[in-house]
Amino acid sequence: MTSLPFFSALHVEAAVSTERAFEAVREAFVAYARGEWSMPPKVYVPAYPAGDFRAMPALGAGHAALKWVTSFPGNPAQGLPTVTGLVLLSDASNGMLRAVLDAAAVTALRTGAAAVLAAETLGRPDAQTAAVAGAGINGKAAARTFMARGREVALYDVDPERAASAADELGARVATREEALGADLLVTMTPGHEVLLPEGSLRPGQHVSLMGADGPGKAEIAVEELVRTNIFCDDWEQASHNGELVHAVEAGVVAREQVTEVGAVLVGDALGRTSDDEITSFDSTGLAIQDLAIALVAMKKADELDLPTIEL
Amino acid sequence: MTSLPFFSALHVEAAVSTERAFEAVREAFVAYARGEWSMPPKVYVPAYPAGDFRAMPALGAGHAALKWVTSFPGNPAQGLPTVTGLVLLSDASNGMLRAVLDAAAVTALRTGAAAVLAAETLGRPDAQTAAVAGAGINGKAAARTFMARGREVALYDVDPERAASAADELGARVATREEALGADLLVTMTPGHEVLLPEGSLRPGQHVSLMGADGPGKAEIAVEELVRTNIFCDDWEQASHNGELVHAVEAGVVAREQVTEVGAVLVGDALGRTSDDEITSFDSTGLAIQDLAIALVAMKKADELDLPTIEL
Repeated sequence: MTSLPFFSALHVEAAVSTERAFEAVREAFVAYARGEWSMPPKVYVPAYPAGDFRAMPALGAGHAALKWVTSFPGNPAQGLPTVTGLVLLSDASNGMLRAVLDAAAVTALRTGAAAVLAAETLGRPDAQTAAVAGAGINGKAAARTFMARGREVALYDVDPERAASAADELGARVATREEALGADLLVTMTPGHEVLLPEGSLRPGQHVSLMGADGPGKAEIAVEELVRTNIFCDDWEQASHNGELVHAVEAGVVAREQVTEVGAVLVGDALGRTSDDEITSFDSTGLAIQDLAIALVAMKKADELDLPTIEL
Repeated sequence: MTSLPFFSALHVEAAVSTERAFEAVREAFVAYARGEWSMPPKVYVPAYPAGDFRAMPALGAGHAALKWVTSFPGNPAQGLPTVTGLVLLSDASNGMLRAVLDAAAVTALRTGAAAVLAAETLGRPDAQTAAVAGAGINGKAAARTFMARGREVALYDVDPERAASAADELGARVATREEALGADLLVTMTPGHEVLLPEGSLRPGQHVSLMGADGPGKAEIAVEELVRTNIFCDDWEQASHNGELVHAVEAGVVAREQVTEVGAVLVGDALGRTSDDEITSFDSTGLAIQDLAIALVAMKKADELDLPTIEL
């Protein structure tokens, strides 16, 4: 009989600090860009209109991980979470399971990390203001990451009470919609059913990390506005099929060579921002390598925590 | 906090009888053939030469399932199982997890069921003898399924001790290689690294369920022998990419229209065996819908078992 450690959401948070998650996600982007880590594109299992499931495998650092995770945007109205599921971590040398982790907690940590990593990498070096639009679980994680990186952050949400409660929880500030969308470093973390950024809304020098559009039909930015930006993404294959880029690629106004993967910038294979005046955008769909990175960090702390086990 | 029931291998076996697994797998093939259940092709995560991982999602009967499962053929030499992993069962209306199950136990039940279902569907109605070549976990499951369906079964294995021990455990008979490969209803359940059935080895009227070749480079039958048979498969998309059919399709000697999915036969949309003299073959790669079917049967028994839980 094998005892498999289980990390509930609280255990994930106890094992992986926001700072450590940020570093782990950076290392994952670098390892992926160098070809050391690999990842088949995530598989969507549609259960529309209610939501969808995603099966996200990745391979790296001698391990394989699989995240089985949902997006059911109508769930909160029923008192259920939008994002739920499990991350399974296995030894790549013999296939044996090593840990099971709460997927929502892993997702929040790595999504917040990716949003801020892209903002720091692509924003102006003299960027002052930072804001997060969308104060749900992942939006709060992005705000927490900005703060862990030493920045003040303002929060905006279409629901003022949610914004106030999130700001209170984090010790952050509530912003108006106009103020948030005008921040030097902007993260949008909405359900992606409404375009937040119409044509002409961003000003020269801004950066926006577009985190919400990760499935069919979703968009946070108008195609006309996206093409005004220097476009970056987490992974071309995923972003051109399920991110903001879908709409622009389908309209024939954005091609592969106009989009840079942020990992290529991190390893020095591609340019990031090229001028103070340019607007940079980051289209995030969420990568399984990010989840693998968080799971590996958690595993290293397993012995320090009093974890429940699954007896196989 | 949510309590998620966990079915260890013993709990899966306690919850799902061989007979019930057989019926559930038949129903899954029917539902899939009718388009009621769906399934993206399984995703392979290669960790060769040691083995590989598969992420296998399916959707049906108001649920989604994901199997994360391995094939590491060299593991038994280290005292580790070839096949290991977990099946995650979720509610398709809101994405919430409903159960976690041992993947090896689910795999054995549904693989044994599929092998015998194909043999009964495609073999001659007057078939007398049944044999299983390969007496590992899944081979024993196929033998158990033949027995549950009222047939005597003979077991062959390249390792005589393994054959003897399996036969003893099941109350079955050991066969010579020649006798086994000559059975009216033959199931091959080997690692797929050696061709068991060279050109000319099968005789008129035989049926063979080829269960072992489910990954790159694997084969249990020579292409020359395969084309002597009326070819059936579990799923064209999977079988033509990762089953026995790969070699024949690549050689240009088998095309889509020469291969029938067994589900189409079960629902009456396609012919099965067309004469007593023809040889029928079934190329199985293993379908996620089969795993979903077993998980659903187990769930119905959850309340009758004293199951451990995972506290989310």
